[in-house]
Amino acid sequence: MQEQRRSIIKKIFASLVAFTGLGLAAHAKAETRNKKEVFNVADEQDIPLFSGATKFGGMVFIAGKGAHFTGDIKSHTDHVLKELEKELVNAGSSMEKVLKVTVYLNDINDYKGMNEVFKGRFGKNPPVRSTIAVAKGGVPGDSLVEMDCIAYV
Amino acid sequence: MQEQRRSIIKKIFASLVAFTGLGLAAHAKAETRNKKEVFNVADEQDIPLFSGATKFGGMVFIAGKGAHFTGDIKSHTDHVLKELEKELVNAGSSMEKVLKVTVYLNDINDYKGMNEVFKGRFGKNPPVRSTIAVAKGGVPGDSLVEMDCIAYV
Amino acid sequence: MQEQRRSIIKKIFASLVAFTGLGLAAHAKAETRNKKEVFNVADEQDIPLFSGATKFGGMVFIAGKGAHFTGDIKSHTDHVLKELEKELVNAGSSMEKVLKVTVYLNDINDYKGMNEVFKGRFGKNPPVRSTIAVAKGGVPGDSLVEMDCIAYV
Repeated sequence: MQEQRRSIIKKIFASLVAFTGLGLAAHAKAETRNKKEVFNVADEQDIPLFSGATKFGGMVFIAGKGAHFTGDIKSHTDHVLKELEKELVNAGSSMEKVLKVTVYLNDINDYKGMNEVFKGRFGKNPPVRSTIAVAKGGVPGDSLVEMDCIAYV
Repeated sequence: MQEQRRSIIKKIFASLVAFTGLGLAAHAKAETRNKKEVFNVADEQDIPLFSGATKFGGMVFIAGKGAHFTGDIKSHTDHVLKELEKELVNAGSSMEKVLKVTVYLNDINDYKGMNEVFKGRFGKNPPVRSTIAVAKGGVPGDSLVEMDCIAYV
Repeated sequence: MQEQRRSIIKKIFASLVAFTGLGLAAHAKAETRNKKEVFNVADEQDIPLFSGATKFGGMVFIAGKGAHFTGDIKSHTDHVLKELEKELVNAGSSMEKVLKVTVYLNDINDYKGMNEVFKGRFGKNPPVRSTIAVAKGGVPGDSLVEMDCIAYV
């Protein structure tokens, strides 16, 4: 009986230690998740302008990406999607983990061409998307398309 | 005394069991919340293009919605708001739970007409809003207005 | 031995009480975080139209801000950034805690002037940014620039 009780008390202690351990681990993880992280900061005259990606609380935000070379909507779309993917992977996310994409076209007539390259690029469970055409020449750096996205890790 | 002690040990055990149970329940809930869910996936030639709604970690993202019929800004705004609501409810959210809306107008002169229909549609605690007019014809499918939103469940 | 055991049981109880206390505190905090809060609601004919800021789950969403006075891109950008900051601080956040900014320009030629004022305003770890020029006159209220943002608390 005495032995049994001692054994019970040991088990309770073991549970408490394990439980406290879990609590501390969860706390440590929460600490990391609730810190802002930034990636690929772009400077303007040595002063931080914006980041390529920010991360907080398990969410990842990617900056608007354009294509700054001579090309058509298909090559620009492909380039922009690859730029998004680079930032996502660098921040610990992926194309499959994207929740929302915004597509800014230079010309609404490029809608179909953009779609051709866009489809399937985010896997079988794609993000939501909003697409609009801005002012002609309204995407910085003469890109035919700009995209940004929100994802998770 | 012996009895009392046994009773105390029983209570401790009960507490631990309850506590562990809570922990497991919380864990199960967290598992569900940290899975990406998608709703109403739109395909392009049988390849997933984008979703009507995505859900992750208690947040819901709704795709940009337009009105693809002949009408004025009021009927288009009303239609778009109803489309947003359908997606929200389908994903387990509601108009009252919307946190952020983006409104893309085809013409800045429709700002007032859009407001007339928009006001009050998200309840007494409305979301934040950003409104801009894009290029004429810049909303896909000749819609006079496109809206997307971010909500919670 | 009896004493020791009693002491052990007391310690276990103390741990459980502390643990339960922590649990309740965490629960209370989660309750607050999972409630939608709104700030500076704008009405249209006494009916809620949109909020200046919304808050949920540790995230803060700020409405699109413009500058409604005669000025150039630098004074408008400065004003808009100050308006964002007011809303952020009011909701318990700050410029340093901004994760994502969207910049809508009235004219792509104002890109450089906007950057001059924008740089450094969000601290050393700036948010991601998407910039586009909308239709001429496409920012409501004749503002040269409109910005919104997503931050945390």
